[in-house]
Amino acid sequence: MGEGRYARGWECLAHVKADAGQPLVEGLAGIAPDLARWVVEFAFGEVISRPGLDLRTRELVTVAALTAMGNAPSQLRVHVAGALNSGATREEVVEAILQMAVYAGFPAALNGITVAREVFEERDAAA
Amino acid sequence: MGEGRYARGWECLAHVKADAGQPLVEGLAGIAPDLARWVVEFAFGEVISRPGLDLRTRELVTVAALTAMGNAPSQLRVHVAGALNSGATREEVVEAILQMAVYAGFPAALNGITVAREVFEERDAAA
Amino acid sequence: MGEGRYARGWECLAHVKADAGQPLVEGLAGIAPDLARWVVEFAFGEVISRPGLDLRTRELVTVAALTAMGNAPSQLRVHVAGALNSGATREEVVEAILQMAVYAGFPAALNGITVAREVFEERDAAA
Amino acid sequence: MGEGRYARGWECLAHVKADAGQPLVEGLAGIAPDLARWVVEFAFGEVISRPGLDLRTRELVTVAALTAMGNAPSQLRVHVAGALNSGATREEVVEAILQMAVYAGFPAALNGITVAREVFEERDAAA
Amino acid sequence: MGEGRYARGWECLAHVKADAGQPLVEGLAGIAPDLARWVVEFAFGEVISRPGLDLRTRELVTVAALTAMGNAPSQLRVHVAGALNSGATREEVVEAILQMAVYAGFPAALNGITVAREVFEERDAAA
Amino acid sequence: MGEGRYARGWECLAHVKADAGQPLVEGLAGIAPDLARWVVEFAFGEVISRPGLDLRTRELVTVAALTAMGNAPSQLRVHVAGALNSGATREEVVEAILQMAVYAGFPAALNGITVAREVFEERDAAA
Repeated sequence: MGEGRYARGWECLAHVKADAGQPLVEGLAGIAPDLARWVVEFAFGEVISRPGLDLRTRELVTVAALTAMGNAPSQLRVHVAGALNSGATREEVVEAILQMAVYAGFPAALNGITVAREVFEERDAAA
Repeated sequence: MGEGRYARGWECLAHVKADAGQPLVEGLAGIAPDLARWVVEFAFGEVISRPGLDLRTRELVTVAALTAMGNAPSQLRVHVAGALNSGATREEVVEAILQMAVYAGFPAALNGITVAREVFEERDAAA
Repeated sequence: MGEGRYARGWECLAHVKADAGQPLVEGLAGIAPDLARWVVEFAFGEVISRPGLDLRTRELVTVAALTAMGNAPSQLRVHVAGALNSGATREEVVEAILQMAVYAGFPAALNGITVAREVFEERDAAA
Repeated sequence: MGEGRYARGWECLAHVKADAGQPLVEGLAGIAPDLARWVVEFAFGEVISRPGLDLRTRELVTVAALTAMGNAPSQLRVHVAGALNSGATREEVVEAILQMAVYAGFPAALNGITVAREVFEERDAAA
Repeated sequence: MGEGRYARGWECLAHVKADAGQPLVEGLAGIAPDLARWVVEFAFGEVISRPGLDLRTRELVTVAALTAMGNAPSQLRVHVAGALNSGATREEVVEAILQMAVYAGFPAALNGITVAREVFEERDAAA
Repeated sequence: MGEGRYARGWECLAHVKADAGQPLVEGLAGIAPDLARWVVEFAFGEVISRPGLDLRTRELVTVAALTAMGNAPSQLRVHVAGALNSGATREEVVEAILQMAVYAGFPAALNGITVAREVFEERDAAA
């Protein structure tokens, strides 16, 4: 049960976030290992892996929400990469962020674009 | 120019929000008519009608962002309807809201679902 | 000292908010009388009555901030009235709210305008 | 596993929230039953029932956080009752809310006190 | 039309933000040039250049709102400078930020003052 | 009066925050000395030193609230230390932060834990 959920979550996380899972688990190991487990088991194993919405859209809605909230730039960075890994184009990621200018204001959109640009540049440098 | 933008925005708004445009314009006429014009001309004519992201995804990212922000329930209501009008299924709307439990917390998701349920029930009653 | 501060705060509150002070004190009397005292003594007696910025501008910045935060409509209502009582025009109040469309998004501005319209209508009805 | 978690969560929810569990489950049954399950299984069964912090403190930190966020008054209402059910006094609930005047501003504290007053009055009326 | 708006916006931006326009346009050129255009054309050409509220007050309300929102320190920095460029005194900028202690809490005010101090120090160093 | 409040606040601040008071006063001396005075006199002398809730719980609710708000990491850092100085265990601090995953989302909890880890590591290094 718990195990099946964890395995399903880990597979989903690996698919979406590539190599972001292991550092998360290691970074929390000494202080809050259950938080890492919840990310895998609940966030990915229970929510994000649900069949009712495709992963590309799931990542785009998360990119938009984190852009709008504006207080979690490092998580936004992970999800910009996750959106690209899930089949979204760079243009679609940019559009989801730009649209937040309407709903959360220009500072939110400008800061979101800054994060996206950094992810794009890292990918270009790594390519 | 301005006119073309307004016409494009109005067409997009009419497509996405059905009959929500006229009440918006009338409601703001006496106090801030330019705000209504900006919604049509900028939000719809300039941003939401852009070609780089399909309308269904645009509405779903807005549903997610407004759910996460949690302080604009009447706008969320309009966009839940807009998502359905743009080709999203009820299940997809629900999933976009549920996913916010992970990124913005359970109260945000619970309040978002309450709004969606009201929109669904109104549609069922009207059908 | 404390007394001087309270008297200064009460005078400032009476000037800005007209008849909003007594209901505040009475509403909190049974549950948190010190919160009412802090509003008078700290918020008005210590902060808002400071000489470095005129009351009209103080009320307009509060109207803008509460519009942007979007989660305190009843306080926004009080400060829209306070801005008018402090010498701001209706047009200036509307402009301060409209500008938040840029910094906090269209839903924040739309909800702020709704509050302002209600205050304006009450004043018109009372006149 | 999943079952054990649900049972543990339901017991914890029943202890803290008294009779709030059944309406939650029923309210979400038709639209998002998994969200109700997550509240029981994850929020209560996995997080709130953890041994490292006593329930009274858990409920008080939630009261403070929801007061500070300011956009979930109906959840705040449930947790004010939950704090009282978990052994906190009315005075402690009021103090946790008042303290948010310092960290989240006076409007947040004022709106939090309004919610607490309603819960206290309902309890008095029911007594 | 669009051109007139852009020219008006650019002139207003140059007046308020001095030399912040060109870096904005260049920084967004490769990823989201339309966002830079919107800042000029919509934010400045359509909203901030409106006649109903003087620029000094417009910048002070933005300083207050960004201080209260607390998640856009780099935009706050630009607007602290913009307020000074628009005729506000350092004391008025400080007062607008301090007042947010009342409406958004002490952390917001403290972080806003930190930003203002940096802008003041840079100006002193450049003088 | 004012003096008594300041003395009481300074004593409380010294107890909770150890050596954080003097740098605060000095850092604000040149730009906004009254803000430092308000922190001592109002936040600590008037609110946090109240008898109705113990200091350990007061610091834990602040840790939770700042984690949930997510936009004041440097204040969160001070209050994680303040919670430990007031008798809370590291485990209790971690639990208060983890619980925010439920109420404010996983990014808020993850960022809160990062701050706590830094405080814990500094203490370990200093020990």
